[in-house]
Amino acid sequence: MIPHPYLLYLGEPKDELSVKTSRGVAEWRPELCIGEYRGPACTLTLGLPHLDFAEAAARGARTLILGVANAGGLLGAQTVADVVAALQAGLNVASGLHERLAAHPQIRAAAEAANLQLFDVREPPPHLPIGNGRPRPGRRLLTVGTDCSVGKMYTTLALERELRARGLKADFRATGQTGIFIAQSGVPIDAVVADFIAGAAEWISPARDDDGWDLIEGQGSLFHPSFAGVSHGLLHGAQPDALVLCHEPGRAHMRGLPGRSLPDLRTCLERNLEAARLTSPHVIAVGVALNTSRLASDEAQRTCRETEDLLGLPCQDPIAMGVGRIADRLQQCFVSSEAA
Amino acid sequence: MIPHPYLLYLGEPKDELSVKTSRGVAEWRPELCIGEYRGPACTLTLGLPHLDFAEAAARGARTLILGVANAGGLLGAQTVADVVAALQAGLNVASGLHERLAAHPQIRAAAEAANLQLFDVREPPPHLPIGNGRPRPGRRLLTVGTDCSVGKMYTTLALERELRARGLKADFRATGQTGIFIAQSGVPIDAVVADFIAGAAEWISPARDDDGWDLIEGQGSLFHPSFAGVSHGLLHGAQPDALVLCHEPGRAHMRGLPGRSLPDLRTCLERNLEAARLTSPHVIAVGVALNTSRLASDEAQRTCRETEDLLGLPCQDPIAMGVGRIADRLQQCFVSSEAA
Repeated sequence: MIPHPYLLYLGEPKDELSVKTSRGVAEWRPELCIGEYRGPACTLTLGLPHLDFAEAAARGARTLILGVANAGGLLGAQTVADVVAALQAGLNVASGLHERLAAHPQIRAAAEAANLQLFDVREPPPHLPIGNGRPRPGRRLLTVGTDCSVGKMYTTLALERELRARGLKADFRATGQTGIFIAQSGVPIDAVVADFIAGAAEWISPARDDDGWDLIEGQGSLFHPSFAGVSHGLLHGAQPDALVLCHEPGRAHMRGLPGRSLPDLRTCLERNLEAARLTSPHVIAVGVALNTSRLASDEAQRTCRETEDLLGLPCQDPIAMGVGRIADRLQQCFVSSEAA
Repeated sequence: MIPHPYLLYLGEPKDELSVKTSRGVAEWRPELCIGEYRGPACTLTLGLPHLDFAEAAARGARTLILGVANAGGLLGAQTVADVVAALQAGLNVASGLHERLAAHPQIRAAAEAANLQLFDVREPPPHLPIGNGRPRPGRRLLTVGTDCSVGKMYTTLALERELRARGLKADFRATGQTGIFIAQSGVPIDAVVADFIAGAAEWISPARDDDGWDLIEGQGSLFHPSFAGVSHGLLHGAQPDALVLCHEPGRAHMRGLPGRSLPDLRTCLERNLEAARLTSPHVIAVGVALNTSRLASDEAQRTCRETEDLLGLPCQDPIAMGVGRIADRLQQCFVSSEAA
């Protein structure tokens, strides 16, 4: 377990998506977060008190959460310097980047000198199984997306909150670094060895017989040419009974790939259902979650209505509108799960 | 480079598929192979002289090739003992298993004591890129399959041999341990971190402008619930102009998964073309390669004719019939490549 309270690191982010890990932890586990650390040129904020490392330590912070992301997942020179400074100020450090804290001689030396811990949450657990695709008991929902960073984790967490509020058993299953900081368990599915993707997904959502739901955080997109392999293996291993399709209307291009357009919603959903049937022949879609944060309110409402008409599924923005109607559809389609 | 001549290890295989790496090296690089090592209960042979480790060393063997496979890729206790004995007899050792030779204390100690080398060809190169899906020059062909171990590597190597015999430039690009032993380069694509599958495929088949073909060894199957993520990422990263579908008629179930049937050929091919179009919009299929080794000759011929009628593509068994007609179709469809 990572010691809390947390100081959330922003550094010098190049855009809002770069700090989605820190923001996600702040939004879904505010009780764990004591402040944020911003570099001199940082113009973003999570709305938490800005603290330097010494101030944070003085107020009781135990761990700096390196909640930043970039393509390739490397630690930059400034970030390395900040991590060393945080350790010298008395904070443990936890990171979700591909490049490991523990692999950096300067960082390792600083941690050893201060007798503090380094957490690399993107280090997968040892001895993951190979997936086998055999039917297993339990109810599972997976979020899938048109692209990376369209709201799959938020949607999954919103569904957990909603189903629990209705008295159902429901557990968020994390597959990415932010989700793991939030759930305090899970597997960083994009960091496992390729042969074990489906096996890792099976491992985080094992057979259950309590009529509860595993709500599995999706990753990437079948339509993202960098990461579709991850998404496909996760889809097979999750063996989902239900899918929720996530999308951000108006996004100009696939994440990180200017010029590459997003798939249309119907094609994306059909392709996901088609692939999912290999291990879950009766899988159905139960809703669409849109990230409408860049739209005016009336436009967001209209876009959701149009999407509902297009796909015949309830469509909501989990942040602006909740996920009540998607949860309604889920309960209608899986009546026995209400017996929990 | 791995020192040769090779001694090929069979050990105590549980079936023919378990020794496909050793057999592949023996068949495609006979000039590198001096003998085979069989355990006391081994009933299989590659047709090479049976040598123990001391005999092999006395005849000039330089490296024991651990050309065996099993689900999970672990070194068993007997294999560890054999590796240590081979090192003590003066042989280097090369392995394609997931579990690393260098991670085993006994093996590492024996190698250090004898001043010999350990080669883990399943260790991916460092600093692979993230895939980007951007169009790149060059001609690329990828073999895809209904299942694992249906002949994708053999088909790809047979096409290399055939195209070169026709005076075309053509290079086998290895994605698995056997292929890497044969090509002496490549990336073990199922061993890379999941985020880098497509990037690894882009890396092994970079842009080329000499009108030659990269012939890329496929892995797994979009229809294998353990490994489809690998196959999907490879398909995107390979950015193939042409696909050849590989299959073994009469196989009872998907490799390693009793009770799970194989996909039908048409569905399998269509799904591969559909997924490949994300990065290669004009991809076409140019042939079907069947492994008919378990069929009588007349039955093999009839099965190929029926498959041709079904799919409208040339269909051959690369071992029994060659790949001439598949190469003909490739040349017809890509006329400019004949200018080489």
